[in-house]
Amino acid sequence: MAVTVWDGLDRDKLNGIYHSLLNEYEGFRARKLNLDMSRGRPSKAQLNISSGLLDCLSGGDYTAENGLDCRNYGGLDGIPEIKRIVAELMDADVSEVIIGGNSSLSMMFDNIASNVSHGVREDIPWQKQGRVKFICPAPGYDRHFAICEYFHIEMTTVPMTPEGPDMDAVEELAENDAMIKGMWCVPVFSNPDGCVYSPDTVRRIARMKPRAHDFRLYWDNAYCIHNFEGERPVIPNIIRECERAGNPHMPLEFMSFSKISFPGGGISAVITSASNCGYILKRLSTQTIGPDKLNQLRHCRFFKNAEGVLSHMRKHSELIKPKFDATDEIFEKNLGNMGVGFWEKPRGGYFLSFRTLPGCAARVVALCGDAGVSLTKAGATYPYYKDHMDSNIRIAPTSLETEDVRTAAELFCLAVKIASLEKLID
Amino acid sequence: MAVTVWDGLDRDKLNGIYHSLLNEYEGFRARKLNLDMSRGRPSKAQLNISSGLLDCLSGGDYTAENGLDCRNYGGLDGIPEIKRIVAELMDADVSEVIIGGNSSLSMMFDNIASNVSHGVREDIPWQKQGRVKFICPAPGYDRHFAICEYFHIEMTTVPMTPEGPDMDAVEELAENDAMIKGMWCVPVFSNPDGCVYSPDTVRRIARMKPRAHDFRLYWDNAYCIHNFEGERPVIPNIIRECERAGNPHMPLEFMSFSKISFPGGGISAVITSASNCGYILKRLSTQTIGPDKLNQLRHCRFFKNAEGVLSHMRKHSELIKPKFDATDEIFEKNLGNMGVGFWEKPRGGYFLSFRTLPGCAARVVALCGDAGVSLTKAGATYPYYKDHMDSNIRIAPTSLETEDVRTAAELFCLAVKIASLEKLID
Repeated sequence: MAVTVWDGLDRDKLNGIYHSLLNEYEGFRARKLNLDMSRGRPSKAQLNISSGLLDCLSGGDYTAENGLDCRNYGGLDGIPEIKRIVAELMDADVSEVIIGGNSSLSMMFDNIASNVSHGVREDIPWQKQGRVKFICPAPGYDRHFAICEYFHIEMTTVPMTPEGPDMDAVEELAENDAMIKGMWCVPVFSNPDGCVYSPDTVRRIARMKPRAHDFRLYWDNAYCIHNFEGERPVIPNIIRECERAGNPHMPLEFMSFSKISFPGGGISAVITSASNCGYILKRLSTQTIGPDKLNQLRHCRFFKNAEGVLSHMRKHSELIKPKFDATDEIFEKNLGNMGVGFWEKPRGGYFLSFRTLPGCAARVVALCGDAGVSLTKAGATYPYYKDHMDSNIRIAPTSLETEDVRTAAELFCLAVKIASLEKLID
Repeated sequence: MAVTVWDGLDRDKLNGIYHSLLNEYEGFRARKLNLDMSRGRPSKAQLNISSGLLDCLSGGDYTAENGLDCRNYGGLDGIPEIKRIVAELMDADVSEVIIGGNSSLSMMFDNIASNVSHGVREDIPWQKQGRVKFICPAPGYDRHFAICEYFHIEMTTVPMTPEGPDMDAVEELAENDAMIKGMWCVPVFSNPDGCVYSPDTVRRIARMKPRAHDFRLYWDNAYCIHNFEGERPVIPNIIRECERAGNPHMPLEFMSFSKISFPGGGISAVITSASNCGYILKRLSTQTIGPDKLNQLRHCRFFKNAEGVLSHMRKHSELIKPKFDATDEIFEKNLGNMGVGFWEKPRGGYFLSFRTLPGCAARVVALCGDAGVSLTKAGATYPYYKDHMDSNIRIAPTSLETEDVRTAAELFCLAVKIASLEKLID
């Protein structure tokens, strides 16, 4: 166990500190806070910078550059101008892009559903091959894990490192077990660690020789342009790297405008080999007569081009960065030399990952919850909600005002101290 | 075979008529027409009456009546005001309504996908029960049949009558075969016959005692308010009738704004028991973080209420009715007493169903296609594209200008005469 600031103090002393912390905690409870740090939700101020999207079309403006009337049926893969913006942002060819509805999660769900029932590229359906497994770097995104659970896909956890997933573990699994059919990745500002995969990690992933020929890489690049300052992080292009490594159809990269424009009115996209796109479109042609092209056009009118999207992201970062700064500052002030909690300050994304002493995470979440600050459920960042160390907590400060972030962070630090002391006294 | 106007004429006479028809046909070919009657697409003029939808929101207008910021995450089942409009239109309770994206076909696809992989209400998945079958009244909607084919669901055809599906055949199948798990219905202005199910048919459907306890009724009420004049057709409410008959969870009713507002930017809904809605929402909560609520709000602002939708539909009917009138008039003029083709003039919907003499449909479609008028592929209105009589052709006049409808209808009649004569001479 880590060395804490309290090591060596006698029980009376510890009890004294504990009761003074509890007093302070009661002070928070009396304030009847109601602050939500549980999900990566944009704030009102962030939504407001996109409000031009709401009225950027007019009654006569509905025609895509290829002449398609966006009000009518058709255009299964998306209108050319939005495909071009996405392709430029993601450094892809337009033939590798399909535009979806307002949820990239739906696109991932649907791709997995398709592989389960109809097989990867119409190969043998996963459901006919036995118990399919996925590699799940953890801590990771609870909604990825929920999709696996829904489809009875066994989740095999590999640890995250500051460079990305532990690649020795990943290769060992993927290259030796034919039932390992997939892997979840959030390569840039990962959910929840906020880490960026190193070039070496990306290349090792691309060069894997999975035992299963129908292994698929779910590359959820949700935060690729969500840096807080400077230039966006550059990592090797997974589509090109996989192509070079002889795995051209392995990766499915997803992106979303949920945290660029509106979560409740954005668009999403999958980027994958043109040949994979053909299979996806074939399924889509049975599923729907076409996507909401008007919303695609709205995005084109509002952002104009990829540069427009990137300059818009700078406005987001101006709103988000102070909240992460405040969180880090308060954590540093309260816990910096305590030895009871560990975190990295992320340079982008929506989350901060905190590690308590073993066995304290659930208690911290409960203490915060009782005092009016809701956090993501402890364990949620692990498959099956099983954080065996009971240590990881995901913190999502974006939806609050900075002052409220400070309050919530103060309470959080207090809860960490209380839970840690309870462990030490116990 | 039907008695035609040409019966009793000698071969020379018939040949003479045939060659004069061919001459006329060459005249059409020389005009190099390019007219599409293949799909039920709204015309530009129809889309224009909804153009207010494009700019009815402003930068400050994004809040649902329950306070939800429609720009952000949440609201899985839809915002209250759009649920209320749909509930009123469909004579349902708001607890029985879930709002979907721009495609009701996607909702149907997804419900069937869910039943195949996870079972009806989490019962035994259809895929684990053997070869699932659906009752497919035919002629019917090709995209319904395509979903069955995609999921390897065996389609059992039952004939359509002017009252709806042949209920003796339906009951016989559903009540004796436990592998019959579903049935497709377009109860109002059916695709393609344009017929409205009789009250007796609806009640017999509701009162069936399917052998399979996990039998589901796919009630695609896409044209429920798409009458050309007068009041909308009133048929018994399938949800209530099934409830009364002890089958409360059997029906899934679907509706869509594709032909109310915009095909490429509408909304859809499923109406089913509140308990079924719970199961659907459970799956949805893994699939997505929420629907496009801004588009829901847009529809509420534009239509205001159910009465607003109905008065909007009167504008559609004013644009559509002349096209069906023209088609019928030209068919009547050219084929009225010929005995070579049969049709009913529909009172609403998007389609007209034409029956040629046996063995002529594919030839008629080919002749029209060669002269620049595209029709839905012959056979498309039957499961597996197998119209054993080669007789049914779906005609969709809405997307053309009325003058072009007249031209296309004239060509169609000529093609019917040519194909029929070829059969007689052969």
